[in-house]
Parts: sequence; structure tokens; C-alpha cells
Amino acid sequence: MSEEKRTELEKLGEFGLIDQLTKNFKTTQTSTVYGVGDDAAVLEKNDKEFTLISTDTLVEGVHFNMMYMPLKHLGYKSVVVNLSDIYAMNGTPEQITVSLAVSNRFPAEALEEIYEGIRLACDMYNVDLVGGDTTSSLSGLMISITAIGSVAKDKVVYRNGAKENDLLVVSGDLGGAFMGLQVLEREKEVYKANPNIQPDLDGFDYLLERQLKPEARKDVIKFLEELEVKPTSMIDISDGLASEIMHLCKASKVGCNVYDEKIPIDAKVSTTAIDFNVDPATAALNGGEDYELLFTVAQADYDKIKGNPHMTVIGHMTDANAGTYFIDKQGATIELKAQGWNHFKKD
Amino acid sequence: MSEEKRTELEKLGEFGLIDQLTKNFKTTQTSTVYGVGDDAAVLEKNDKEFTLISTDTLVEGVHFNMMYMPLKHLGYKSVVVNLSDIYAMNGTPEQITVSLAVSNRFPAEALEEIYEGIRLACDMYNVDLVGGDTTSSLSGLMISITAIGSVAKDKVVYRNGAKENDLLVVSGDLGGAFMGLQVLEREKEVYKANPNIQPDLDGFDYLLERQLKPEARKDVIKFLEELEVKPTSMIDISDGLASEIMHLCKASKVGCNVYDEKIPIDAKVSTTAIDFNVDPATAALNGGEDYELLFTVAQADYDKIKGNPHMTVIGHMTDANAGTYFIDKQGATIELKAQGWNHFKKD
Repeated sequence: MSEEKRTELEKLGEFGLIDQLTKNFKTTQTSTVYGVGDDAAVLEKNDKEFTLISTDTLVEGVHFNMMYMPLKHLGYKSVVVNLSDIYAMNGTPEQITVSLAVSNRFPAEALEEIYEGIRLACDMYNVDLVGGDTTSSLSGLMISITAIGSVAKDKVVYRNGAKENDLLVVSGDLGGAFMGLQVLEREKEVYKANPNIQPDLDGFDYLLERQLKPEARKDVIKFLEELEVKPTSMIDISDGLASEIMHLCKASKVGCNVYDEKIPIDAKVSTTAIDFNVDPATAALNGGEDYELLFTVAQADYDKIKGNPHMTVIGHMTDANAGTYFIDKQGATIELKAQGWNHFKKD
Repeated sequence: MSEEKRTELEKLGEFGLIDQLTKNFKTTQTSTVYGVGDDAAVLEKNDKEFTLISTDTLVEGVHFNMMYMPLKHLGYKSVVVNLSDIYAMNGTPEQITVSLAVSNRFPAEALEEIYEGIRLACDMYNVDLVGGDTTSSLSGLMISITAIGSVAKDKVVYRNGAKENDLLVVSGDLGGAFMGLQVLEREKEVYKANPNIQPDLDGFDYLLERQLKPEARKDVIKFLEELEVKPTSMIDISDGLASEIMHLCKASKVGCNVYDEKIPIDAKVSTTAIDFNVDPATAALNGGEDYELLFTVAQADYDKIKGNPHMTVIGHMTDANAGTYFIDKQGATIELKAQGWNHFKKD
């Protein structure tokens, strides 16, 4: 390694870093259909199907805090966030492998709790655990999961297929996972200041569940099939709506107008956000971890999806030269900036 | 988690732990051919082939020490150890995904070095990098890689097919990686005592390469195909010969006699072992990280392999009731015990 040059990781951020690290790699295998750059890799399987592969890692102190993350939920969530990537390709997950690195400060019973959560997620989503690698770490806990799925060749949806005038659609509602985290962080600070005060989590069930036990939108993929709608592009919302919209626009080479008033936000998310002096739209745009699906559909499909309570049209795609814009409730047009989570930022 | 019961991880060891954690999992997907318990999972692909999936994680301070592991070699080795698992199923690796967790004490240039090693391994073994996940960690560096491969359905080799009287065969030679580690550890201690003394690594090239830049035995899989030999069982040697023999015997429900005098050990490994007051056979049996292939073949195939310089017959399988034995150079029969590396053992 050259001693002269030192580029801090926080400067690049996760996506800049991955681009930088993988730019010299070329794919040469005929079985590689699509490599780095989408929610999952797409591999040749048979005449009718592709195989989908996605990997994601959760690290203690970065993605979760052991003070408020029950181990069973951690196991469950670590599976769900990976399955979400397979659904985001319009596919069906079938298997997972689990790599666990854990310090020996944990007893075997703690790992059993994690695996119990993994098993619950496997049952819920009909996937098989087919590989396990458990090793020690010097300090924290780390879970890396690979999800394997399949998709009919004519059904696979990438990030890069959105066209001008397509409608931008999001499943469920947004900002809940972020506000759940704020509630947990607040109670953690209260507890640290005075361990005799019991945490006040009453009434925050929905937000806490969004943060601690999210679900992947298997149901939305089923709805789309039943409605005979094939999205033109799709991504899952792990890093916040703004960041994911930017990914779709960049990959599809289009612009976008997103309307503040259309963004689905649960009433509890709004009231909690206001209590925390956070603009609810900011929680939705930049919060992340909602694991909803963001996709585009052709205008012609609007009638098929408009009645579905799980899908909300929040904007439309424009010419690439038009840029990506957020139109607030007062009608002001603001250029959209991804402020997704930069794991490498130093506090 | 129950507060009453606490089972230390070191008590179970890696394999006991995985058994314990995965015992409640059942596979339900028709596409799952073989799940946890072999070098790789086996999944349905098409009429002629299976898909193979294997995951392995390398953790700083546990699997490697940054003081003597160059980053480029680390990237290379982390790919190779995963490909080795695909070869151990008699398959061909085609893709990998890489999950990297790294603290921001590393500059981007350090990660570029790691990826340069990953790229070299991809070139050498003809595999494509198809997925990347890079996140921060609170302290050390961790690389988790998933390898994806394929194998003709009539060619897949599991651990559980060895039969009584089959010959036990090992590729290459053993103990080198372990002795390489001993040399590096010795020089590390010398350096810590006096940083002005240059490390004395002259003449240890072979051992250091075995430790720092191991290769997976792609060539042996090719030889087996050319020789028209299908092993009855196979495993790769990551944890030491003794441990891997025990795995084959347990999975295949057979016993085994292994002969000390037959175990292939390089002259440099022997002389270095003696210098370090280590029995060369101990380095081979318990050292690990050689990434050679251990397999069994029917007696009828002996003539096909006997002339191959990359393969050595080191014993034969017996009835399960006969037990697993090591016969030393004096003809003494010693019950074989796996003393593979227990990552969870507290120092």
C-alpha cells in the first residue's frame, strides 16, 4: 500500500466506495447475467429461471445496539433485510446461508436466541437455511447472510428499466423504522442517566416493530403478479427514500418529480416526528430501514394498482435532463439529495 | 435469553455449536438438495446440474494478523478458502460475493489492496465478483465471502459416500501452512522485543506461501475428471487432517486406518517442525489451513491414481465399529482425535 495517499472512507461513502473497489472487475462467466450494481446478482439457472443472490451484513454498534435489540429480533431482522433484496428483483427467496462472528463473551444460549429468530424468519418466508459458518470475533457480533432465490426470466426487474412518464410507486408507509430508532435512542439516554427509570415505550408499538422486527414485502410481489403488473424498475428501501430514488434515476437514466403530499406516512410516525422536532417528510426521505419496495410502472398500469391499499403513487419519472425534484406541500421545488446513512462517517 | 444457563462457546467448539444451532431447522424447499453439513450446500439448478453455495468468514485477530498478513494476500486467501469448498464437492466455482466490514481507521487505499487480491484470485480461478457489501465495523476487519458454483448431477461428491475398504487419498503435502504460521509468529515476537531487528524469513518461502497465499486444488478436480475417477467422498483440509478424516468417517459411518509413514510432508516442513520442537506428523494432523483435498476412492480406481504425483494414498476405510486409527512409524496404533482449531477457546 502506498504510504503517501490516504483517502478517508467517510469521504467516499458506501456507494462511492463500492464503485471504486469494483471498477476493475470484469465478468467473464457465461452464467453471470448481471453482477454488482443491483439489489441481487442475476445468474443463469435453467431455460425458464434465473438464480438471484444477495448478501448483507449487520454489525454490532453500527447496524444494531445490543442494549435494545433483542437477539431473537436480530436474527429475524438479519434474514428479512436479505430477503427484501430478492423481492426487489421481483423474485422468490428459497435459501439462506448464515455467517456469524461472535466474541466468546456470548454464551451458546445467546446464539440459540439469534438462531431462533432466524428460524422464525425462515418459517415465515418459506426459506431453507442451507449453510452455516460460525466463528469467533475479538469483540462484537456480526451476522452476514446470503439469500438465494429464483425468478422467471420474463419477470426479473432491475433498477435500470424506468422510463420517462412512468409512475413512481412505494409500498406501505415510510419513516416508521427511523422514528422507532429515535424512541429507542431517547430511552437509552434516559436509562444511562438513571438506570432506575423504566423505559417509556408505551404507545410506540408500531414504530418499535418497524425498527426491531421489520418485514419484507413478499405480499407486494404477490399482488403485482395477481394484478399482472410488471414494474419497469424496482429497489428496496433500506437507506431512505431519497437515496433509493436517486439509485433508480441514475441506473435508469431518468429524472423524477416526487410529491411531499403523496408520501405515505403513518399518523403515529408524524406525531412522533413532530414531538422529536423532526419533519415527518425528512424521516421518510432520509430515515431508512423501512424495507418497503420502491418501483416504477407504466402509466398504462395505473388503473390496476390505484385501488391497492399497499401501494401509493408518489411521483413520476421525467427526462434525465430535468433532474430529480421533491415538491413540498407549499409547491416549492427542491432538488433531491440522497442523505442516506453513511456508515463510515466519524462521529 | 434465560439468565440461569450459560454454556461457554469454547465448550462446544465450532462443529458442536453449528450442530446445536441448526438442529431445529428443517428444509422444505424442493430446490434444496442438501443443506447444512457438507463443504457446500447443493441446490437444484437444471436437468443436468446442481448449484453449489459455500460461505466462509475471515476475522482479524482470529484468522489473520495484520502485522504479517499483507492486504493483497488477505483478499486472495479469503477467495481461495471459499473456492476450495466448491472444489471439495467436485464442482466448479463460477461467482463470488464479498462482504467487507472494516473500521474507518483503514483508508480507502487499504480496501483497494484487498480488492486487488480478490481480483487476482478471480482471474486465477475464473470466477466473477457479482455482489459487494461494504460496511463499517467498530474495530477490526472482517471478510465474508460466498462462493457459487455448479457441478454435473452425476459428479457431485459428498462427505458421506465412503465405503469400507475405500482408499483414503490426500492431494499435495501437509503441515506447511501451520509451520509458516509458526515462523511468522516467531518473527513477530522478535520484532516486538526489538523493532530494529529485521525479520529473518529467508529460506521459508514455501511455508510462508502456504500460509499467506494458499491455492485451492482446481487442478486435482481436473485430474480426477481426466482419470475418470469419481471419489466416493471428499472434503477440503481447512482444520487439519485429523479433524477432516473424522468428518468423513462420521458422515460416511465408517472407520479408518491412517499411516504416519504415508502422510506427505515436504522436507522443509519436516526440518522446520523439528527446529520448532514440533512432530512433523502433528503439524500435518492438527495444523490446518493447507486447503488440500482429502478424498476416498474405490480400490478398483487405485491403478488410475497411483502414478499421480499430486495424490497420495494415506490409508483405507474400515468398518465403523473398528474405529479411526493412526498407525505411527513404530507400528503403534493410536486412536485418532480431532484437535482442529477451536476458534472459541480462550487464551
